[in-house]
Amino acid sequence: MPPLNAYVSSLGGSPIRSLLSLAQDPDIISFGGGAPASESFDVEGIGKSYQRVLEEHGARALQYSSTEGEPELRAAVSERMTLNGLHTEADDVLITSGSQQGLGLIGQVVLDPDSIVLTENPTFVSALQAFALSRAQFRPVDTDSGGLVPEALESAILQYSPRAVYLIPTFQNPTGVTMPESRRREVADVLARYNVWLIEDDPYSELRYDEWTMTPISADPRLAHKSLYLGTLSKVMAPGLRIGWVRGPQEVLEILATTKQGMSLQTSTIDQLAAVDWLEHNDLDAKLVPIRAEYRRRRDAMVEGLDAVLPDGYTLNTPMGGMFLWATLPEPFDASESVMDAVHAGVVYIPGMQFYVADPKPSTLRLSFVSNPVDVIAQGLERLSTVFR
Amino acid sequence: MPPLNAYVSSLGGSPIRSLLSLAQDPDIISFGGGAPASESFDVEGIGKSYQRVLEEHGARALQYSSTEGEPELRAAVSERMTLNGLHTEADDVLITSGSQQGLGLIGQVVLDPDSIVLTENPTFVSALQAFALSRAQFRPVDTDSGGLVPEALESAILQYSPRAVYLIPTFQNPTGVTMPESRRREVADVLARYNVWLIEDDPYSELRYDEWTMTPISADPRLAHKSLYLGTLSKVMAPGLRIGWVRGPQEVLEILATTKQGMSLQTSTIDQLAAVDWLEHNDLDAKLVPIRAEYRRRRDAMVEGLDAVLPDGYTLNTPMGGMFLWATLPEPFDASESVMDAVHAGVVYIPGMQFYVADPKPSTLRLSFVSNPVDVIAQGLERLSTVFR
Repeated sequence: MPPLNAYVSSLGGSPIRSLLSLAQDPDIISFGGGAPASESFDVEGIGKSYQRVLEEHGARALQYSSTEGEPELRAAVSERMTLNGLHTEADDVLITSGSQQGLGLIGQVVLDPDSIVLTENPTFVSALQAFALSRAQFRPVDTDSGGLVPEALESAILQYSPRAVYLIPTFQNPTGVTMPESRRREVADVLARYNVWLIEDDPYSELRYDEWTMTPISADPRLAHKSLYLGTLSKVMAPGLRIGWVRGPQEVLEILATTKQGMSLQTSTIDQLAAVDWLEHNDLDAKLVPIRAEYRRRRDAMVEGLDAVLPDGYTLNTPMGGMFLWATLPEPFDASESVMDAVHAGVVYIPGMQFYVADPKPSTLRLSFVSNPVDVIAQGLERLSTVFR
Repeated sequence: MPPLNAYVSSLGGSPIRSLLSLAQDPDIISFGGGAPASESFDVEGIGKSYQRVLEEHGARALQYSSTEGEPELRAAVSERMTLNGLHTEADDVLITSGSQQGLGLIGQVVLDPDSIVLTENPTFVSALQAFALSRAQFRPVDTDSGGLVPEALESAILQYSPRAVYLIPTFQNPTGVTMPESRRREVADVLARYNVWLIEDDPYSELRYDEWTMTPISADPRLAHKSLYLGTLSKVMAPGLRIGWVRGPQEVLEILATTKQGMSLQTSTIDQLAAVDWLEHNDLDAKLVPIRAEYRRRRDAMVEGLDAVLPDGYTLNTPMGGMFLWATLPEPFDASESVMDAVHAGVVYIPGMQFYVADPKPSTLRLSFVSNPVDVIAQGLERLSTVFR
């Protein structure tokens, strides 16, 4: 075989996705992936949207369209961001084929080989995978129960001269931690002083189980020219459509768009039009009410049930939203060793080791509470109870 | 603003796409882009497929799915390739979000910075754009009316030690040239002797206006471990869905898949399922009969009409399929200078200059004959007739 790019060939895929494909067996109950509950999908409403789009704009829906995204969809998602405290115009938005594509494009456009990216530790593995394609290096920043520690961020910036800081401030993956408003301001204060990009990933904030919203860090006007904010319809509408977006300075969006052109031309026209039709014909907040209530029930069921399952001395983050519980087992338990026992018992979680950019902790694990109904959660926990005994 | 990747920022977008967006004005008749005729789309049949998929597999269609693509779709496109003379199993196929994504991923996985890619000259601009993201260098190989000249290919391989050869052997874009079977064997003979990738791009071969098929060069068993073949549903079903694929050695498909994971996770689940449903519920060959007949009519109308429009001494390639006519004007006409006159006259073509990797010829231009009905072609040609007088 002729040679390949040796670096890219060496990268390998997400260890999580391979663990999950190992657990494709329908007999295995998965607390692994970040898949929304399939039964929460508005199959009928989305079906009507596809039908309407094909009836009313069939030729347009099936034809090539712009790399930047359908104007109506750019307008709709910018309105939603504005409602959520991040003032945005349609022109500030590049539609992407899921927010993973946004991460991939940001990696290509913002990072140079050996650029340093500061991250929470642990953090979202697939963002690391995207940035690794640009040969980025990762450095952890200390976190506490309020997320990234501002002083640690400042010293890391001074020590490493990073190109970018990648953060998931709300219902972080994998820890579930949410950064309070006061902390957000302190982080913005630090970022405002240095010549560094903020990459703010916000896939989960609409899945909140209490009555509040958190303002994105990117809303700070001092960061207008140095922030790239990522949103997605995956968790509120459906991930199968692959609709996400990047909000950022227009000069950067233009370069992201030309890079998207080279990498994949455009996002599915029909999926974009169906998404905006669905948003226009439905009240998203009303749609989210039962989903939030159900996910909250599932979270509570899992938190409660885990107490009889995890060994004495465990700790657990109970997040105010999102999808994941993050547990730490007492010595000498090793969640990455136990995961195969769990699979054999018919249940799977993700070993926390996978999410670290430094000092991986074998005692940690991530459990998704959204993908299964309460009775299946109970069954899965029963299976899991044999593992840590 | 913090720094960006200076190289990627310097690349710029496709000059063709900006010319086309300039000509978005509905009053302008476009012979520019490679858009299939919208009226050829099976809007009703595709609509039924989306409906059926959502009724029968709603939860699956809206959920995350594999990076490699839906198994049924991989099977369907491999059957079609096998029918067309390129024996393929489902596992030899990676589904991509349009074949542009295939080109982008191949660029990342196959090429190193400064890798040389040999190409026809002129060639498909967006492939250059994809490979340029990997900092590839391009070198032209001499062509004649049968496409790439095998001896020229061999000397270019010896001279440049390329990583890959990028070819569109059937109804080439932009020239419309098709490489005859005997030439394909000679090219395969050369490629079989050297340690170089063949990237064979084949978007147009289903749009043939005579009763024959051309065997892909990749069908030569000696090239099994060094060929990457790209196919797409864009020209036979619809481009708005973004369904393409790469056929290649499984070791390479795996690396392409992990790279796709990092760059965009997966292709739209619902679009994939709708595509395979449509392929299963329709006879593609029967569907193609009227499309081929209509495109042939349009080709003939444009070829005939151009004779009264282009200045005496022009030459024209009349392709046996595909989408494009390629014209060369006599001295001293300059098609890249005249294009703004054309736009002002209400018609647009693509200056041939854009397609060259070396020695661009200002006398050349590309005209798409598929996008407009015969009467609109006549009207567009009438407008164009004022430009070259």
